[in-house]
Amino acid sequence: MNVLVINAGSSSLKFQLLDTNTREVFAKGNCERIGIEGSFVGYTVNGEKKQLDVDMPDHKTAVQHVFEILKAVDKPIEGIGHRLVQGGWYFPESKVVTDETLGWAREVAPLAPLHNYAEADVIEICRDMFPELGNVIVPDTAFHYNMPERAWRYALPRDVVDKYHVRKYGAHGTSHRYIWRTVDEFTNHETHKLVSCHLGSGASLCAIEDGHCMDTTMGLTPLDGLIMGTRCGTVDPATVFYLNRVGGYSIDDIDTMMNKKSGLLAVSGVSSDSRDVRDGAANGDANCQMALDMFNYRASQLIAEMAASMEGMDTMAFTAGIGENSAEIRAAIVDRLGWLGVKIDPELNDVRSDDPRVISTPDSSVKVLVVPTNEELMIALDVEALLG
Amino acid sequence: MNVLVINAGSSSLKFQLLDTNTREVFAKGNCERIGIEGSFVGYTVNGEKKQLDVDMPDHKTAVQHVFEILKAVDKPIEGIGHRLVQGGWYFPESKVVTDETLGWAREVAPLAPLHNYAEADVIEICRDMFPELGNVIVPDTAFHYNMPERAWRYALPRDVVDKYHVRKYGAHGTSHRYIWRTVDEFTNHETHKLVSCHLGSGASLCAIEDGHCMDTTMGLTPLDGLIMGTRCGTVDPATVFYLNRVGGYSIDDIDTMMNKKSGLLAVSGVSSDSRDVRDGAANGDANCQMALDMFNYRASQLIAEMAASMEGMDTMAFTAGIGENSAEIRAAIVDRLGWLGVKIDPELNDVRSDDPRVISTPDSSVKVLVVPTNEELMIALDVEALLG
Repeated sequence: MNVLVINAGSSSLKFQLLDTNTREVFAKGNCERIGIEGSFVGYTVNGEKKQLDVDMPDHKTAVQHVFEILKAVDKPIEGIGHRLVQGGWYFPESKVVTDETLGWAREVAPLAPLHNYAEADVIEICRDMFPELGNVIVPDTAFHYNMPERAWRYALPRDVVDKYHVRKYGAHGTSHRYIWRTVDEFTNHETHKLVSCHLGSGASLCAIEDGHCMDTTMGLTPLDGLIMGTRCGTVDPATVFYLNRVGGYSIDDIDTMMNKKSGLLAVSGVSSDSRDVRDGAANGDANCQMALDMFNYRASQLIAEMAASMEGMDTMAFTAGIGENSAEIRAAIVDRLGWLGVKIDPELNDVRSDDPRVISTPDSSVKVLVVPTNEELMIALDVEALLG
Repeated sequence: MNVLVINAGSSSLKFQLLDTNTREVFAKGNCERIGIEGSFVGYTVNGEKKQLDVDMPDHKTAVQHVFEILKAVDKPIEGIGHRLVQGGWYFPESKVVTDETLGWAREVAPLAPLHNYAEADVIEICRDMFPELGNVIVPDTAFHYNMPERAWRYALPRDVVDKYHVRKYGAHGTSHRYIWRTVDEFTNHETHKLVSCHLGSGASLCAIEDGHCMDTTMGLTPLDGLIMGTRCGTVDPATVFYLNRVGGYSIDDIDTMMNKKSGLLAVSGVSSDSRDVRDGAANGDANCQMALDMFNYRASQLIAEMAASMEGMDTMAFTAGIGENSAEIRAAIVDRLGWLGVKIDPELNDVRSDDPRVISTPDSSVKVLVVPTNEELMIALDVEALLG
């Protein structure tokens, strides 16, 4: 099945057209600066990289350009899959778009206002423009929805929790689900307790037992858990009260600070990109070294926490930008897990590849893998399952 | 040395007069409802329990009554130790009270306004009333102050961190320090990596390696970490943004909610006292059962996190109200740590005693102890060390 996968942000729209059988990607690209001066579409079609500088005052225009570009691909689009950042309390799994499910995407939008409204708009645009095509909503939270209550419930007053649907939703669910699926196949169904480590500019861990999410490090929103490129991760929630009262920062200021100006960027003082931070550290910059130390330290702590949620761990998988590409960070994290018997082989760890691979030693108590993630494929497979 | 230990709250003042050599407690009590109608002093002197109903419009009056009561004890007071909730960035250890150190206690008070101002006032009252007596400040944060930077630093912008002294301070430091000291002695210096579990209506864990704090679960304030009697513990800090924007709660509302109306109280819907929650659970109340499940689950996760901070753990110690008295909760927590080789003996676990004791099996990978804490003695020992 040829599926168009759309990942809309507030001012961007990523797309990919792929075949679920052969996994061939016919076209992919990104509409950037939607609604902002200087908008353009960067894309690759039939192996050729191009850029289209064009006015995109809104998402509708962006969708029109995407379909215009896709005409160069001689493949019919047979379904559209839409990533939704926040599925809230309605989506334990992906759902075909109907008036009802689209309404749900909007109803839960206050949990992720920067993303959900734009995504819902794009779904509606696609339905209006191509009524003959089926659309599917693939929420990033769905995989986590049925984790045990002891893990998702916050110890806040029940009336508040119920009225405002406050709980741990997590994120990166589509990636973690893909990692489970790939690891399960790769290890010939010998994996039972997996800690999936999605380490990119956003980063989260997921404890997965026999295919079920048992816990994850992100919380109500993607701010929680690990230290990330620009996000602080877990801090005492009272930090917000203190910065407001003593620092005089507004809630919006603190939200922006914690989500956009913290993390590796804040500690290193150099960059949110772990590669720049690594270079800085290699050149003796103490702040960059501290940023990496903190990133690795927190990752090792939270991996232990995820293992505790399953009362054990037999497999770990690294994925996403940092997880797939930084042998140094993988080594530094695993080095702190030697007390659990985890051991990697430095040579295997240094191999670069686009395929899933084992990097642990034969005597490691935990099998450690590197598994390239593919959220677009996972979304396309959901579209096929629901519409194919 | 006969030391008077004072623990002042915003409307209360606990006291204890004890001998640091014999550890005998000559008198102890609590001035309650200071500044509120119906104030009284409940106390025990020479083994006799008494209550004095008396107007205490302010802390000064309370201190006067305490010294009046202590006249019945035929022991000279040779020094006063004051618990300070928050030592901020000035107290890596206890300090003799001078104009300078008292100024520090006030300077850092915005970090713990409900406690520090009252405590500083009481120190000043004691100095003024009894200029011949030495006073010592024993901050609850001091033991944690020199934990490694990777553990205390928050990944927030450095200018904000520096200007407002935002970091992990922790709490219960005096108790954790006492537990280390007792365990170290009890195990004949064979303990190197201890997770100290202070579980009371407030609760925190501390990773202690060879006497040094390596990490702790409380953060900038005592709100963070474990689920507590009325505190929610760790939640996504963005929960504060969301409750403010979508729920319309003010920062003060959310502070009160998270500190006073959450935790076991909120989840059980019954009580902040774990004994009531246990009774509810025993009678089949599902909300009480969930409250206990969450408490034990989070404790097991965070014990694993503390072990990760030391890259291992050879000893665990339970202390404080729940840790010392609830065999059920100890068993439930340790039961989730079987994957780490931790095992307790049910019979040893059921023994009730005021002495430190081992409750693990001989083949447990980690020695598990119950150790009654004694913060007052620890404070008195600091007074003796500095003034004796």
